[in-house]
Amino acid sequence: MAVTHEKIELPAELETQFAELTRGAEEVLPVHEFRKKLLDAHNKKLPLRVKAGFDPTAPDLHLGHAVLIQKLRQFQKFGHHVLFLIGDYTAMIGDPTGKSETRKVLSREEVEANAKTYKEQVFKILDPQKTEIVFNSKWLNDLKLEDMLHLTGKYTVARMLERDDFSKRYAAGQPISLVEFMYPLMQGYDSVALKSDIELGGTDQKFNLLVGRDLQAAYGQSQQCVMMTPLLVGLDGVKKMSKSLGNYIGIQESPTDIYGKLMSISDELMFAYYNLLSDKSVAELKGIKDNIANGTLHPKQAKADLAREITARFTSDAVAAATGEEWNKVHNPKERGIPQDIPEFRYTKGSQLVAVVKEAGLAPSNSEARRMIEQKSIYRIEGESETVLTDFKMTVNEDFILRAGKRKFVKLVS
Amino acid sequence: MAVTHEKIELPAELETQFAELTRGAEEVLPVHEFRKKLLDAHNKKLPLRVKAGFDPTAPDLHLGHAVLIQKLRQFQKFGHHVLFLIGDYTAMIGDPTGKSETRKVLSREEVEANAKTYKEQVFKILDPQKTEIVFNSKWLNDLKLEDMLHLTGKYTVARMLERDDFSKRYAAGQPISLVEFMYPLMQGYDSVALKSDIELGGTDQKFNLLVGRDLQAAYGQSQQCVMMTPLLVGLDGVKKMSKSLGNYIGIQESPTDIYGKLMSISDELMFAYYNLLSDKSVAELKGIKDNIANGTLHPKQAKADLAREITARFTSDAVAAATGEEWNKVHNPKERGIPQDIPEFRYTKGSQLVAVVKEAGLAPSNSEARRMIEQKSIYRIEGESETVLTDFKMTVNEDFILRAGKRKFVKLVS
Repeated sequence: MAVTHEKIELPAELETQFAELTRGAEEVLPVHEFRKKLLDAHNKKLPLRVKAGFDPTAPDLHLGHAVLIQKLRQFQKFGHHVLFLIGDYTAMIGDPTGKSETRKVLSREEVEANAKTYKEQVFKILDPQKTEIVFNSKWLNDLKLEDMLHLTGKYTVARMLERDDFSKRYAAGQPISLVEFMYPLMQGYDSVALKSDIELGGTDQKFNLLVGRDLQAAYGQSQQCVMMTPLLVGLDGVKKMSKSLGNYIGIQESPTDIYGKLMSISDELMFAYYNLLSDKSVAELKGIKDNIANGTLHPKQAKADLAREITARFTSDAVAAATGEEWNKVHNPKERGIPQDIPEFRYTKGSQLVAVVKEAGLAPSNSEARRMIEQKSIYRIEGESETVLTDFKMTVNEDFILRAGKRKFVKLVS
Repeated sequence: MAVTHEKIELPAELETQFAELTRGAEEVLPVHEFRKKLLDAHNKKLPLRVKAGFDPTAPDLHLGHAVLIQKLRQFQKFGHHVLFLIGDYTAMIGDPTGKSETRKVLSREEVEANAKTYKEQVFKILDPQKTEIVFNSKWLNDLKLEDMLHLTGKYTVARMLERDDFSKRYAAGQPISLVEFMYPLMQGYDSVALKSDIELGGTDQKFNLLVGRDLQAAYGQSQQCVMMTPLLVGLDGVKKMSKSLGNYIGIQESPTDIYGKLMSISDELMFAYYNLLSDKSVAELKGIKDNIANGTLHPKQAKADLAREITARFTSDAVAAATGEEWNKVHNPKERGIPQDIPEFRYTKGSQLVAVVKEAGLAPSNSEARRMIEQKSIYRIEGESETVLTDFKMTVNEDFILRAGKRKFVKLVS
């Protein structure tokens, strides 16, 4: 983030805190107010109240979500107080337009079950001692028409239509329900109710976050700053991480998958992930980059360190260590137990896999060979990579090592 | 009103009712539904619920307001039930934008005092037995955010911006507070709460009246029809009647003023007032017009009949009769006691009024003449008209009869 320090001078330790807290953030508004808040919190020994809102629907978080939660973790590390807001209110009343399929009506029980699932996941990143989980139904339930009129009195139609998606839809003649104008006001009112000092959100939340700022002022409170975290690029290195694109790492995936997927990313992506997801300090990250640049650290080692840190966060240090060792064994021929001397089998190019497996002596019959292929015990080994072969009709046209089960190997030679 | 009857056939008596109820109305929407409602009400012997909303601020009504109330009176005459809605809710919570000076906060006591003043005035036109006075705070007070969200879910931003004043202000870049979008919804919700069959309002209310129709449908109710009454033209025959323009007749004015002002209007305006304010039937009005046309009725007599009817409504038949006689006496020389033989006084053109009064022997001294002029006892009579003269420095340049007090007359001759 490009930060103009503006006026507010900070002592060195707060300058460090500021650098850590703003690292990776897309935008902080207004920066000088945020610096002032850090200074005040330090002087008065009062932690900042850091708000972030989450959907009340059943969560299944991936590293993309973890970026924002990691930012909350950083705030906690510096002693601040996290308000983890679950926006249960609208989920419990449903979407009055009746059009949204995503905004389904949830019962109190469902909301609480979802909150429990949230906790299980986010408390792998956040410190429960410094996290207050709040539900906005607590105050929105009690709002009367009168209060809502006061809220709507604080905002103009033109201002609301400035929101990017609204202005596009309005220009395109697509309907915008009036109730959609109410949601930013409710989100903003949450900040009033919570007296938040800073609110975190994605860049798509900019407008809504700033509504909170405006409403706090309208209600005579000091205004929150807003911090926008970026979207995490997915494993493909191109598109944003998302479940539907398949380029994600779920935080409830197996340690083997988390570790393995992280080992598969590019070096460039590795640095982005370090910056957004690692507990390593800004200074430490610089050290890693420098060491890779001067050749004293292999990028693969840096990647393994990252994979181990992230895996450990969602499991434990011990599990992460074991997962790393296992990964190395599988991906390092010397440690995978592949014999030095593998018997050769001379095959005819164009043969069906099932025939090759049988004729190479890895299976007693064609039907047994087929069963083994279907049960995924036949692998193709090339260098460090190992691929399971599942199509028994596949024709073999090039040389590679065939593994059957754990210990049988044959080198195919044409 | 140009009425297309569309499909719904009515028996003769309902056809008459329809003609009376729609007479003078600017617009009825939709006409065929209104005809259907009249038929249903007749068949089921269930009166229509006729809603009209009024400001909760202290009322000081004039004949312009009486047009709509006269329409309610017509509905009552045909047995329907009037819901006289006092919109006290917003007056009691005030304008959340804090910008409107007109929308001041009223206490419960003030609202009730104003309601009392309303009753005193409107019950001169309406039948208290068939009028239900309702306050919208009764249901709006209980609305929660949830209900408001459901309401806002029924309307789109684009639809709201279609309202004439909104679209103009939005196009001109003038701010529209979001709360202004809430008022039509609240007015519409009043129709839901009251289950009204028809709502009356001015032509400027068209949008808001139709919101009520939409919301009733959204809440699964049968939809109200809407009827818009026109603005009454003021005494000048040009501009709409309004207190600030001074061209009005207040319904709490003295009978002499009400009667006298009505006698001063043009024949054309007389027919408009008959149509909008008189209890005379459509057939009777046609008779009056015909008789004037064929010379059997003098327009002045028709005007006197109207003046007497309207004056009687706000006072009593006896008072109206006496007021009419008094008016005739003042405006008819034979009945005003103006002597046949009036002494002449030869004056010099360009003399000051004060000197003429003294020298004509109407006052013993110049100072006494001036006092009389200032106390409005000096009149100028010309034919039927009599004007009080108040400027003692006025120069006299033409001949007329001068009256001092009740009985002294002098004919000025140059």
